[in-house]
Amino acid sequence: MAEALRVGIAGLGTVGASVVRVLHDKAAELARQCGRAIEVVAVSARDPRRERGIDLGTASWFDDPVKLAQADGIDVFVELIGGDEGPARACVKAALEAGRHVVTANKALLAKHGVALAEIAEKKGVLLNYEAAVAGGIPVIKTMREAMAGNSISRVFGILNGTCNYILTRMEAEGLSFEDCLKDAQRLGYAEADPTFDIEGNDTAHKLSILTSLAFGTKIAADSIYLEGISNITQADIRAAGELGYRIKLLGVAQRTDSGIEQRVHPTMVPTASVIAQVNGVTNAVAIETDILGELLLSGPGAGGNATASAVIGDIADIAKSRPGFQHGPVFGRPAKELVPYKKAQMRAHAGGYFIRLTVHDRIGVFAAIAKRMAENDISLESIVQHADGLGAAQQKTVILVTHETTEQAVRKAVDNVTRDGHLTSKPQVIRIERAG
Amino acid sequence: MAEALRVGIAGLGTVGASVVRVLHDKAAELARQCGRAIEVVAVSARDPRRERGIDLGTASWFDDPVKLAQADGIDVFVELIGGDEGPARACVKAALEAGRHVVTANKALLAKHGVALAEIAEKKGVLLNYEAAVAGGIPVIKTMREAMAGNSISRVFGILNGTCNYILTRMEAEGLSFEDCLKDAQRLGYAEADPTFDIEGNDTAHKLSILTSLAFGTKIAADSIYLEGISNITQADIRAAGELGYRIKLLGVAQRTDSGIEQRVHPTMVPTASVIAQVNGVTNAVAIETDILGELLLSGPGAGGNATASAVIGDIADIAKSRPGFQHGPVFGRPAKELVPYKKAQMRAHAGGYFIRLTVHDRIGVFAAIAKRMAENDISLESIVQHADGLGAAQQKTVILVTHETTEQAVRKAVDNVTRDGHLTSKPQVIRIERAG
Repeated sequence: MAEALRVGIAGLGTVGASVVRVLHDKAAELARQCGRAIEVVAVSARDPRRERGIDLGTASWFDDPVKLAQADGIDVFVELIGGDEGPARACVKAALEAGRHVVTANKALLAKHGVALAEIAEKKGVLLNYEAAVAGGIPVIKTMREAMAGNSISRVFGILNGTCNYILTRMEAEGLSFEDCLKDAQRLGYAEADPTFDIEGNDTAHKLSILTSLAFGTKIAADSIYLEGISNITQADIRAAGELGYRIKLLGVAQRTDSGIEQRVHPTMVPTASVIAQVNGVTNAVAIETDILGELLLSGPGAGGNATASAVIGDIADIAKSRPGFQHGPVFGRPAKELVPYKKAQMRAHAGGYFIRLTVHDRIGVFAAIAKRMAENDISLESIVQHADGLGAAQQKTVILVTHETTEQAVRKAVDNVTRDGHLTSKPQVIRIERAG
Repeated sequence: MAEALRVGIAGLGTVGASVVRVLHDKAAELARQCGRAIEVVAVSARDPRRERGIDLGTASWFDDPVKLAQADGIDVFVELIGGDEGPARACVKAALEAGRHVVTANKALLAKHGVALAEIAEKKGVLLNYEAAVAGGIPVIKTMREAMAGNSISRVFGILNGTCNYILTRMEAEGLSFEDCLKDAQRLGYAEADPTFDIEGNDTAHKLSILTSLAFGTKIAADSIYLEGISNITQADIRAAGELGYRIKLLGVAQRTDSGIEQRVHPTMVPTASVIAQVNGVTNAVAIETDILGELLLSGPGAGGNATASAVIGDIADIAKSRPGFQHGPVFGRPAKELVPYKKAQMRAHAGGYFIRLTVHDRIGVFAAIAKRMAENDISLESIVQHADGLGAAQQKTVILVTHETTEQAVRKAVDNVTRDGHLTSKPQVIRIERAG
């Protein structure tokens, strides 16, 4: 058997502790699968005294993760610190420059500095593996980077944030408000004390930006993503969606169009009978559409110490199976130096179906006025439903429109016109409909 | 850039022609991803004159695929002939013994000779890749063999045959009989003229046997699979399933139990709200349950020239990215020589819920007699539904039982007893219920 693969781990939080535990518990099996042992020889974390319930054996302790990254005795550096700057960035860069393979779960770091880091990895001939950075335990990076060689991807979309999916699932199943579900999610540890980053879609955007690069061979452009969170989704939307045969999910979508590449994160109506509509709770899912394979969907746990550790260990095992002389595939599927600039498609050119929910004064002619505004903007309607609102609101009605394929520009203009006409009693709600199999 | 990877392809049917076409059309992109060109330098097929609509360029023609497999000028031998003996087996063996990497889509060959072929590959230090052999374009082999390193798998199950799933989907959606759906499937090319191999579960069993080996590190045991096809599924079953919140799918299931490993292929009730229940038509899906990752589900096209070609090309690209000196992971996840004998769990020990549909004489006391037989065998019932049969059959009733978890042995005994009691007017129907997320 070949010499053991020597691993250094920086960051011993939930995921780091899981990685150490699994590498220890499954040592014999991993050695059998990889043809060599995998040994944790060095670690670094903020607090050396904290009880983590793991056996660090004879692993050396480093106070400075950069020193660990550069240490002579390691083959692979595993970064589980998190954050897009500071020690995480410094130590990943140092490890690559020192010719160490790197495994990271850090989506924020990759979304911001992924291409620059990939260039260093490719120059040094080492691997930069990051399966855990997107959709936790789901092997979407391996699938896109390896299994789909030769495929041209037209669209990739997914449920990439467990917090949002948990909230939307409970809102639908139990009829609760967004605020109540968020509170429960916080109580159960599914949402942070400050949940903004999750519920406003930023976390989904980080992950999506990595998938976009893999899909289209473009430089990562995490700042060019259209962003809409779920905080304005109400029970009225969820009920109306259900009646129309849809379910609301926060999706990240990257799609090639004639005018460029769309990257968008927003609440989306997907058909209730689609596979992705059944992906509930904290589970994640990614769907990928290509010219050759067709449509592939992967679903599984998107977070959690063990699921994330599973992806980290898969990445380490891939390195353990490789040997000196192995020429690795590029970090983002194509050589980092050949990634082309991201050409952003304008959101107003987005084509698709739309759900429009309007609360209007209950007056003669309102319905006709709305229909006229739609027609003026060449919007063809698939269905119109009119509801009388609850008992206390006899003076207003709800009108729900579902459009055939149209453009964002047309919908915005039509809704602006209806608003300016003075028919609405509250803010209009517009939710995009996404094709899903 | 490194030297081109030289590929020889035996078999130019639908899949073979797709592989040649995609390698040609995507040559530049593949070279960019793999760091070297992939060239088809030699081919072999039965009829050199047939028009296949592909450009074979300067590829040499071999009448004998074994000669092609041994030819000096190739690095990778791609077997797309099919069949578990004859030329397919001879040329794969010859290629491995000549030190060529092999890519195959041949599930029958692997189900029968996979372990012996893996031993040769591992001795020679070459890759034997077979992503296309199970679930077409779905990267389940890569996921289980690479991404899940360190995971202990407890159960793997899936919809592995598009023909059966197409028939069951149409039976449910359109209320058609099994026979009518089969005829349509034959007309559309989804089913063979002799459909036995598909509809009786043999094709699913071949694929399952490969997944079992990957999941549990056991030798392939395709002959030790409990087999039940879909030909006795009726509209009465499908309607009753729907009313109870289930959908019927033909699943292949491999599961670790206290008494060994279950391998079974049979019609299965899965909850209508589960992800796998939405996998319709010819689409395939595989779910994998592990101790660390949790549950992962992959769904996508399970057959078709292009989807299968996508998997074959992914396998070739993995070889193109490797270089001499690379120590490959074992063919079935663990070294072939260390695969342990398959320990078969007895089907009568299978534990799970059951759906039992009985057509009984409409007589006083029948219901009580059935309930007594269930109780005698310690079967606890989750629900009992009694239907009056259609107008013409006033003398008989349908009784549908759904059990809590019990054993196959108990159910068989109870149903035998009820049958012997003389209450039934036709053969009892028993369908297993499978947990699914």
